[in-house]
Amino acid sequence: MPSRSARRLLVLFAVIALALPAARARAASPAATTSRAFSEAQLAQARQLRERALADDRAYELLRSLTSQVGPRPAGSAGDARAVAWALERMRALGFANVHAEPVTVPHWVRGECSVETVSPWPQRLAAEALGGSIATPDGGIEADVVAVTNLDEMAQGDSTRFAGRIVFFSGRMERARDGSGYGRAVTVRGRGAIEAARRGALAVVIRSVGTDRNRLPHTGAMRYDPAFTRIPAVAISNPDADLLQDQLATGRTVRMRVRNTSRMADSTQSANVIGEIPGREKPGEVVVLGAHLDSWDLGTGAHDDGAGVAIMTAAARLIGDAPQRPRRTIRVVLFANEEFGLSGARAYAQVHASEAARHVFGMESDLGAFLPLGLRSRVTPEYLPAIHAMHSLLVPLGVEYRGNDASGDADVGQLVPLGVPVCDLDTDASDYFDLHHTANDTFDKVDPLLIRRNVACYAVLAWLAADLEGGLGRALQAPAR
Amino acid sequence: MPSRSARRLLVLFAVIALALPAARARAASPAATTSRAFSEAQLAQARQLRERALADDRAYELLRSLTSQVGPRPAGSAGDARAVAWALERMRALGFANVHAEPVTVPHWVRGECSVETVSPWPQRLAAEALGGSIATPDGGIEADVVAVTNLDEMAQGDSTRFAGRIVFFSGRMERARDGSGYGRAVTVRGRGAIEAARRGALAVVIRSVGTDRNRLPHTGAMRYDPAFTRIPAVAISNPDADLLQDQLATGRTVRMRVRNTSRMADSTQSANVIGEIPGREKPGEVVVLGAHLDSWDLGTGAHDDGAGVAIMTAAARLIGDAPQRPRRTIRVVLFANEEFGLSGARAYAQVHASEAARHVFGMESDLGAFLPLGLRSRVTPEYLPAIHAMHSLLVPLGVEYRGNDASGDADVGQLVPLGVPVCDLDTDASDYFDLHHTANDTFDKVDPLLIRRNVACYAVLAWLAADLEGGLGRALQAPAR
Repeated sequence: MPSRSARRLLVLFAVIALALPAARARAASPAATTSRAFSEAQLAQARQLRERALADDRAYELLRSLTSQVGPRPAGSAGDARAVAWALERMRALGFANVHAEPVTVPHWVRGECSVETVSPWPQRLAAEALGGSIATPDGGIEADVVAVTNLDEMAQGDSTRFAGRIVFFSGRMERARDGSGYGRAVTVRGRGAIEAARRGALAVVIRSVGTDRNRLPHTGAMRYDPAFTRIPAVAISNPDADLLQDQLATGRTVRMRVRNTSRMADSTQSANVIGEIPGREKPGEVVVLGAHLDSWDLGTGAHDDGAGVAIMTAAARLIGDAPQRPRRTIRVVLFANEEFGLSGARAYAQVHASEAARHVFGMESDLGAFLPLGLRSRVTPEYLPAIHAMHSLLVPLGVEYRGNDASGDADVGQLVPLGVPVCDLDTDASDYFDLHHTANDTFDKVDPLLIRRNVACYAVLAWLAADLEGGLGRALQAPAR
Repeated sequence: MPSRSARRLLVLFAVIALALPAARARAASPAATTSRAFSEAQLAQARQLRERALADDRAYELLRSLTSQVGPRPAGSAGDARAVAWALERMRALGFANVHAEPVTVPHWVRGECSVETVSPWPQRLAAEALGGSIATPDGGIEADVVAVTNLDEMAQGDSTRFAGRIVFFSGRMERARDGSGYGRAVTVRGRGAIEAARRGALAVVIRSVGTDRNRLPHTGAMRYDPAFTRIPAVAISNPDADLLQDQLATGRTVRMRVRNTSRMADSTQSANVIGEIPGREKPGEVVVLGAHLDSWDLGTGAHDDGAGVAIMTAAARLIGDAPQRPRRTIRVVLFANEEFGLSGARAYAQVHASEAARHVFGMESDLGAFLPLGLRSRVTPEYLPAIHAMHSLLVPLGVEYRGNDASGDADVGQLVPLGVPVCDLDTDASDYFDLHHTANDTFDKVDPLLIRRNVACYAVLAWLAADLEGGLGRALQAPAR
């Protein structure tokens, strides 16, 4: 099968690429500019930190604990509350300072039972899960003929009345890519599909999973409604089930389908951002933020998304705290509440801490899984690029290339960029991430203990240097930098 | 992660192996012995058949139809009845002769809902499915402390009272192997686990899935009871869930678990073996049987197990029927009822056709998925080995090695071996088969169209030659031949 062979080739290339990390260092910073920003002593400390991180399993074991002892933790759920308790307890046990929870009000969507079946001409049950935020169907479900359309662009073309009274099937496939770029193109039907279908009179939306795997495990994720249009249920079927449905449709026969779903919105409730610090030795009131989100979707145990980030950032900060000399400034780990269903924690943090934004000297977030770090991006004003290049130079032996000054800060820490906080993004190899993302398969067994160490090493080096850099990194470049 | 790296290496080797088919021909039959059994004209016909099969997508399209238009077809279900109707209709449409159904009484086990959850100290829901044949739990489920044991050998050692009143977790892992040999070692807990646990007073059995994947999709399969001991429910959890449970147990805390299951045995019902023939040109009363099983487990659409066999054997026979000259004897495709839950169809066939066993000159079964054919085994008396070697010689260009005279005939056709019917087995590469076997993931997208063609080519060549061989292949060697 072509896709299988292609996959094998990809794996082959990956094997070769893993064996030749030096090949990826071609964008290395010029050594001449890097030696000025930091002293040799600072760089030596950071190198030592890097080597210790590469031999340290603390992140891996933290993640084992979070996944096996807490598990799924969607915003507002009992698992979410257990995750907050877990994080507070672990940070205290690890000797973090100023460990506390900052309350965040979160929406609470409750998944129910979801079933999708073809009724005629060939009855089959399809593996399906509601998208996050979807309303329920009536008790008996919604039964209607299926109309298939690739994506929102195709929906906007042709006869707009063809969707009325139908169940719309969005059939577009997500493409696998090392930079995860297929996601942005594919995810629009998840977010806006129900809005665009409802405005054309459709009764329900079924999407092909936004993911690159071939498992019978649907990908959930947030969807939205527009008050201007009727709310209709929206669910995802797994990729193999989407193939099966397409095989039925390809015969030219009318396929009739029944969708049933019992999810609902409960009352908003309290969750929390969990914070812990490694105090700085000279300027403890100035902080470098290491962010990740504590919530996860409910189907898996949130191992890569974003248990890995929680574990990586906590372990990186702890390693910095254990180093012979602490950096000048404080390392603040922020485990954000509810990234997945509306960024509640990040918005609350940005609001509550707006007045001290100037004392946030740098921020980073880990939320692309514990995969191989491949690239570093920054967002600083140009005069601070030499410092960034110096920081990057210590990641070159790990095969990380410098990719430009267009970092976003990712979903949560990115909320601090408008407040002027400079950030870096560490791009990981996203080739396999979207096999697991938002599925039941996002579990601890998918995490490579050596790769999680590499991530810890990168963040520990960057955080230590940023926190110890005498003059700081200025304020974030606000204009798009690409 | 070691298993990931190992997997990558395996894939790398597979890529290399695919590129060097000649490397696998080392057990090729000596050319000197092969030219006598068949005429050049016969061999030329078989070669032509092979080349046509390698360019023919009939099997692939048959399998698409079976999986998308029938889907799951466990014995006694509505899907089973639809599969029988599908097979009769397809064979007639393809112009087979003597198309008919031979009634078979089959047991009818009905899957219900199954849930497994850890209750304390860390509540989590585990992905679980009942094993085929399991009784239900009481409505409220069974709640008890978990006692873990690797396998039946370990259960037989040590304090036999430690299982009383507990839920037994069989934690042994199946090993990945090209010859599928890990399966036989691992599957004993599925078949006999409930018996051995019940005789020691356990309340329920939870097994790590008998499979090599890391998906949250449990592997079902038949389990048995012994009238001498209490019947207790038996379920499988997916491999990642087994890992999670082991992570909880590894803390040393007592893990309490609740198992709930609503499956039940319904009344036995009627299914059928479906038969169609390509009549022989000289001896139509003598038959070569090409077997596969029409039933499947209920979680997937039975694509590799054994829709592939159904499609491969049907397409191979049809190609033989389309050849310039039909073979001397009849090719009889037999699609057996209920292989998975007790071999009902094979036993009925062997009983009904016992009196004509002598006119069954040869048999083969495809039931190891549409993967790369790697080896041929025979079971004939020694004087017929030159004919087998001649048949094999045509598979050498496809990379198939001859592996010995120890074929079983596989589960269904193997029932004919005690009646004297000589058989061959075509070993396929089973490396990935047990990722999918008996799971929801056994779906059409996992089937490689080029590999299914290769299987058709092998069976078509072997069947044509066996059916055209003037003197036949004698009777099956009865003693173990290894």
